[in-house]
Amino acid sequence: MFDKGILLIISGPSGAGKGTVVRELMKNDKYCLSVSVTTRAPRAGEEEGVSYYFRTEEEFKGLTERGELLEYASFCGNYYGTPLKYVEARLSEGKNVILEIEVQGAVQVKERCPDAILIFLTPESISDLEDRLRGRGTETDEVISMRLDRAREEVRLMDKYDYIVLNDLVRNATSRINGIVETEKYASERNRDFPEKFLSEKE
Amino acid sequence: MFDKGILLIISGPSGAGKGTVVRELMKNDKYCLSVSVTTRAPRAGEEEGVSYYFRTEEEFKGLTERGELLEYASFCGNYYGTPLKYVEARLSEGKNVILEIEVQGAVQVKERCPDAILIFLTPESISDLEDRLRGRGTETDEVISMRLDRAREEVRLMDKYDYIVLNDLVRNATSRINGIVETEKYASERNRDFPEKFLSEKE
Repeated sequence: MFDKGILLIISGPSGAGKGTVVRELMKNDKYCLSVSVTTRAPRAGEEEGVSYYFRTEEEFKGLTERGELLEYASFCGNYYGTPLKYVEARLSEGKNVILEIEVQGAVQVKERCPDAILIFLTPESISDLEDRLRGRGTETDEVISMRLDRAREEVRLMDKYDYIVLNDLVRNATSRINGIVETEKYASERNRDFPEKFLSEKE
Repeated sequence: MFDKGILLIISGPSGAGKGTVVRELMKNDKYCLSVSVTTRAPRAGEEEGVSYYFRTEEEFKGLTERGELLEYASFCGNYYGTPLKYVEARLSEGKNVILEIEVQGAVQVKERCPDAILIFLTPESISDLEDRLRGRGTETDEVISMRLDRAREEVRLMDKYDYIVLNDLVRNATSRINGIVETEKYASERNRDFPEKFLSEKE
């Protein structure tokens, strides 16, 4: 049966709890996070190939031109991208690679890698989301209102996703995602070589 | 989230252990078996609506003509079919309905009900299958050889299936199927009404 890793894209509205759920998943060593390439300068303690792959703008441009990034985006004047080779190497080792990216990037990746699983992690309702954002106590009303507007747009893109996972409790969300990864390994689409293997063991 | 039942079609080569796995699944009351319609005469102890729905040939013909059967087949001069209404009623109650049928019937059902999940339950290899068939000690060499030929054909239809489930141990196969059913409930295709529900709870 299918024994490679699965590329898992976890997306969802700001405040859905993606970071917490990803940290919980990462406690299991069958998961790993993708290491991004960035043009940002390393900060104290950041290590090449662990925190990020640090590249110049010119090098980054080369990567995009040669199609070596699964997706990329700019943020505060720096570029960030997901290196295809890194992801492929981890998948071949049987690790499930987690990408925590926003919806547009997720859709880009799914186009490049149709085998990737897109998960929309979400609270049950927009009012739950608002409670979570207010509960953080770190954002102004204006920022919260902007995030809620964005969540309203994001949820409408739901048909781009493979699965909707409610984050009612972190342990529930984590267990649902583990179940999805396990189940996807039995998908007939991932086991196109099964008939051949089934028949070849005859002799 | 999706709270209806899922129609689960379990198929696979003769000797794969479908009957044992289905009996194990049925210990959980979230599953039920479909009750078939048949033109066969009731045997002692068989109850209408429990063992089968017993119908005359004419009545059966009426059911097929009105499209009220999900699939049907004849066996030893009698007709057997799966009544659509029965299946739909159980699914609305949230029960996962199991159909244990052969590959051709499974493909017929999937055409009528694209939401059904087709599971190919199989040993790891054709030689494992042969061992199982010989282990039963009930079939002649000729019958075994015929069943192996049929299994070779069936495994080639694998792309018609959604999932391939290995039956190495009954408890593994059962737990894989439970996982599939659980995971399918998070599929975005089964939750098309989520955005509306997500937004409506705002007020």
